[in-house]
Amino acid sequence: MTIKDIAESCGVSISTVSRVLNNHPDVSPKVRQKVLDAAQKAHYVPNNSARDLVKSRSEGIGLIVRGVGNPFFTQIIHAIERAIDAAGYTLVLHQISTDDDEIMAGASLARSKKLRGLIFLGGKGDYQSSDIAILDVPFVCCTYTVRFTPLARESYSSVAIDDKMEGYRATRFLLEKGHRKIGVLINSKHDRSIGELRYMGYCEALAEMGIPLDETLVEEAGSFTLPAAYEATCRLLERRGDITAVFAIADSMAVAAAKALHDKGRCMPEDCSVIAIDGLEMSSYFVPVLTTMAQPQTELGTTAVKTLVDMIEGRAGNRHILLPATLRTGGSVRSI
Amino acid sequence: MTIKDIAESCGVSISTVSRVLNNHPDVSPKVRQKVLDAAQKAHYVPNNSARDLVKSRSEGIGLIVRGVGNPFFTQIIHAIERAIDAAGYTLVLHQISTDDDEIMAGASLARSKKLRGLIFLGGKGDYQSSDIAILDVPFVCCTYTVRFTPLARESYSSVAIDDKMEGYRATRFLLEKGHRKIGVLINSKHDRSIGELRYMGYCEALAEMGIPLDETLVEEAGSFTLPAAYEATCRLLERRGDITAVFAIADSMAVAAAKALHDKGRCMPEDCSVIAIDGLEMSSYFVPVLTTMAQPQTELGTTAVKTLVDMIEGRAGNRHILLPATLRTGGSVRSI
Repeated sequence: MTIKDIAESCGVSISTVSRVLNNHPDVSPKVRQKVLDAAQKAHYVPNNSARDLVKSRSEGIGLIVRGVGNPFFTQIIHAIERAIDAAGYTLVLHQISTDDDEIMAGASLARSKKLRGLIFLGGKGDYQSSDIAILDVPFVCCTYTVRFTPLARESYSSVAIDDKMEGYRATRFLLEKGHRKIGVLINSKHDRSIGELRYMGYCEALAEMGIPLDETLVEEAGSFTLPAAYEATCRLLERRGDITAVFAIADSMAVAAAKALHDKGRCMPEDCSVIAIDGLEMSSYFVPVLTTMAQPQTELGTTAVKTLVDMIEGRAGNRHILLPATLRTGGSVRSI
Repeated sequence: MTIKDIAESCGVSISTVSRVLNNHPDVSPKVRQKVLDAAQKAHYVPNNSARDLVKSRSEGIGLIVRGVGNPFFTQIIHAIERAIDAAGYTLVLHQISTDDDEIMAGASLARSKKLRGLIFLGGKGDYQSSDIAILDVPFVCCTYTVRFTPLARESYSSVAIDDKMEGYRATRFLLEKGHRKIGVLINSKHDRSIGELRYMGYCEALAEMGIPLDETLVEEAGSFTLPAAYEATCRLLERRGDITAVFAIADSMAVAAAKALHDKGRCMPEDCSVIAIDGLEMSSYFVPVLTTMAQPQTELGTTAVKTLVDMIEGRAGNRHILLPATLRTGGSVRSI
């Protein structure tokens, strides 16, 4: 059974069958259903390998995701998927684990799938020019940018929030509410990526107010996981029972911190305020709602795709776009 | 630059270079680093297309995920990934949206990537034999099974919890705590899948106790999303302010239900108890911890892979495995 047979049995043109099977929008629902029924009845399977050969280098965009289960990525992935589809390309999703090298993975995927470009979702901020030389298609770092090495700005693109600035804003918000003993919950002070940047923002906000950095207020969880953040908060509370607020650098860490506060007999926000960065949908359903610097998740995804497609289609070169986070005021912070 | 060149420059064998580049474990860390450095310096990219041709039909297993951002799938995907790797196969992950046909997507992926088998994560329980005839590789339905059509049991494999039984157990738990006016929060009474099954379990538990089904206690959210579950709970509370408990068929829905209870001036569990099914990690960090029938997420993933690999390697035919959920007792249910 070929496309031609299906077209004949439905009394439509071959191009109509092709449009239906490739999910193009310009077919009436009635005809679409007729063609799909005929294709299913005939057990027709589109031969994508053959199609890939014909359309070589014409439509695939790779999305390399570090930690596909990260709830913060959910909405961004959906936005990227929709935007890639709307731009007429096909999404090739590839997940890597925390320790994998995203550049190697991306280069390998781009070559094997003949991709036109790559989006990296989650990654390191310390690429060297020799690292990225392996990539022979345009690429966009989404949710992070390279800040820890002198990588030429024109050699890559990025779409992210200003992590240092948002760490500053979150801390500043607590300071303006009267808090002075502010614990900070981070994955690592030296991750060469978003953790280090958000922590730098914390330090900067304190310095601006003339408050010396107190290392006993800084707790490293070692990762972004809930159990690690819970244990880290317990350590922080044991060492510094006098804190009135916590800046957790991610919503997921704040969720665990709130639980640790409760288990240690402290009410949030009465005894201790909590603020975070990210803006997970689920944390807006907490009681009290988590106050957080919400990242523009959908816009991060659509802007990353637009930036990449502009390069692929020759409309623009490498660009760096910083999008602002938005303060989502919940009930987890109080004035003192 | 070829593998041979890298081997010569490092003074190791070609097979050692190959093992390093394919991430095999039996290479010393020192040699591994040396080879990786040389490969990176040379901008060497493994040509997976060529490798795929050589190893045709030898190593790919496809994972079709309906809703890759579903937090419930996170741990299962990780388990599947590890198990596929340990069995010597390569994971090919493909996400589909809620409305996509997973069978068509799987058939297309299996053909284009020359896969050895497929795992469907999330799907419908009403396949016809004509639907699955399109698949020419073994496949496993993970987290669901086909209960709504008389599909021959030997024509497919499944690894799931007994959704109806767990719905029964959750409702029964509330009944044993003295609750009689139990609202049920579902996506749809007629989704031909896990929603309908869990709802059937609710009905069965009531019937067993001689309690007639009261339709005013049943609220359909239309989906599993947080906003839909929140609105549905508000409707339920407006209609039936006298309920003392809610059975939400998914943890995510229970999170939204707890928020709706709070916003309507009710305390959980003092005024209204909540129980769910799934066992998300995050819901165990709630205050109070959500009481739920926790699915064995890691075991679901590893068992799905084992079932599939046994078929691929000729050790077994199609099988159906039901794994028990475990009651995770939190603080969201009280006795009345």
